[in-house]
Amino acid sequence: MAIGVKALPLSFVVHVLGVAGLVMVLVWCIHFRGGLAWESSDKSLIFNIHPVLILLGLIIIGGEAIISYKALPLKKEVKKLIHLVLHAIALILGIVGIYAAFKYHNESSIANLYSLHSWIGIGVIVLYGIQWIYGFIVFFYPGGTDAIRRESLPWHVLFGLFVYVLAVSNATLGFLEKLTFLENSGLAKYGSEAFLVNFTAIVTVLYGIFVILTALSQAPAEVDYSYTAI
Amino acid sequence: MAIGVKALPLSFVVHVLGVAGLVMVLVWCIHFRGGLAWESSDKSLIFNIHPVLILLGLIIIGGEAIISYKALPLKKEVKKLIHLVLHAIALILGIVGIYAAFKYHNESSIANLYSLHSWIGIGVIVLYGIQWIYGFIVFFYPGGTDAIRRESLPWHVLFGLFVYVLAVSNATLGFLEKLTFLENSGLAKYGSEAFLVNFTAIVTVLYGIFVILTALSQAPAEVDYSYTAI
Repeated sequence: MAIGVKALPLSFVVHVLGVAGLVMVLVWCIHFRGGLAWESSDKSLIFNIHPVLILLGLIIIGGEAIISYKALPLKKEVKKLIHLVLHAIALILGIVGIYAAFKYHNESSIANLYSLHSWIGIGVIVLYGIQWIYGFIVFFYPGGTDAIRRESLPWHVLFGLFVYVLAVSNATLGFLEKLTFLENSGLAKYGSEAFLVNFTAIVTVLYGIFVILTALSQAPAEVDYSYTAI
Repeated sequence: MAIGVKALPLSFVVHVLGVAGLVMVLVWCIHFRGGLAWESSDKSLIFNIHPVLILLGLIIIGGEAIISYKALPLKKEVKKLIHLVLHAIALILGIVGIYAAFKYHNESSIANLYSLHSWIGIGVIVLYGIQWIYGFIVFFYPGGTDAIRRESLPWHVLFGLFVYVLAVSNATLGFLEKLTFLENSGLAKYGSEAFLVNFTAIVTVLYGIFVILTALSQAPAEVDYSYTAI
């Protein structure tokens, strides 16, 4: 599926939204929530690592990894390397980000894994990992036969986009869950922090939409290879 | 974009998941939450109309409307009529479902439109309405020129799937938000009601995934027209 729109302008929108989302989540976690810390007596600083790393890793770097085939005027082999390295970074940041949430819960005696956000989050990171390993083995090293690559490619793209949409959806669940906790503890429902969190979630959704649009759009003409096979 | 899988078996999975989701949300709202009512001194019964109508309307009937072109062995004109009538029903149930949430808030002195769920919900219903009206005018009555139809079709499909994914995501936000409120008021985090709500959300996500897969799959061979143009 390719839509009749050029990838390059869409990819610029992705970059801009990514920077905006990252700035917004940092302003939230540092200015409004007191900063980030791996060890602290103020356990909420440990939690703050979670939204920052998930947004930066799984969503922003993961999104850039998805569009790398469409947004970069480079050779296929170089773009493939960028694609798999960015996804590896996204995956590692995602795992550390999830670990931070567990660390915060455990050190604050908060129950683990009862919420929909946590359930889908575990699902996303497992599927993301499986997708990365499958992609590495079939498309990079040792590499499958031509037939296996050809058969796998549309499913790799489709499954990857599914996991990514699930990750973006789950990020919105996380923003809503945390903000609901804060509002139940007295945070103003129409205050500046509440608006910032909701707009960060909206920017995250828009980022995801433009990543998908870029993935479905036409790669630059001078590039021979891309995943337009689907 | 069409994947090399037949639509019919996928569409059966959609029907089964739709029935399962409907039963689960009814068990939740009637057995655990006391039932549905348009007028009641127990205002929570008014709220209960909201998840039932949204899930039945926007998600389940909306999903069946999307796959009608791929799942039914009928003539194109008949399927088009089914597609637009089902989407109209979905839209009306969605509007009434949203109205029920406002009615509950207003009669219980709860603030309106502060949460991410409510913001995205308003966005979804507006986009759903615009999509329906555009589809009606261009593809049904009075109908656009052949060139306009041909140009519009892939965008109609893409935009429709985007709005649908947004609706499914927002349904999960709603389940999480309501359950978080209940858990903050003392509901057991690992109790049967919490598990029922979370699994209803999971079934909703699976339903959405199979709707998208069916929409991307191969229509039955005897059918000439479908939206495989994309």
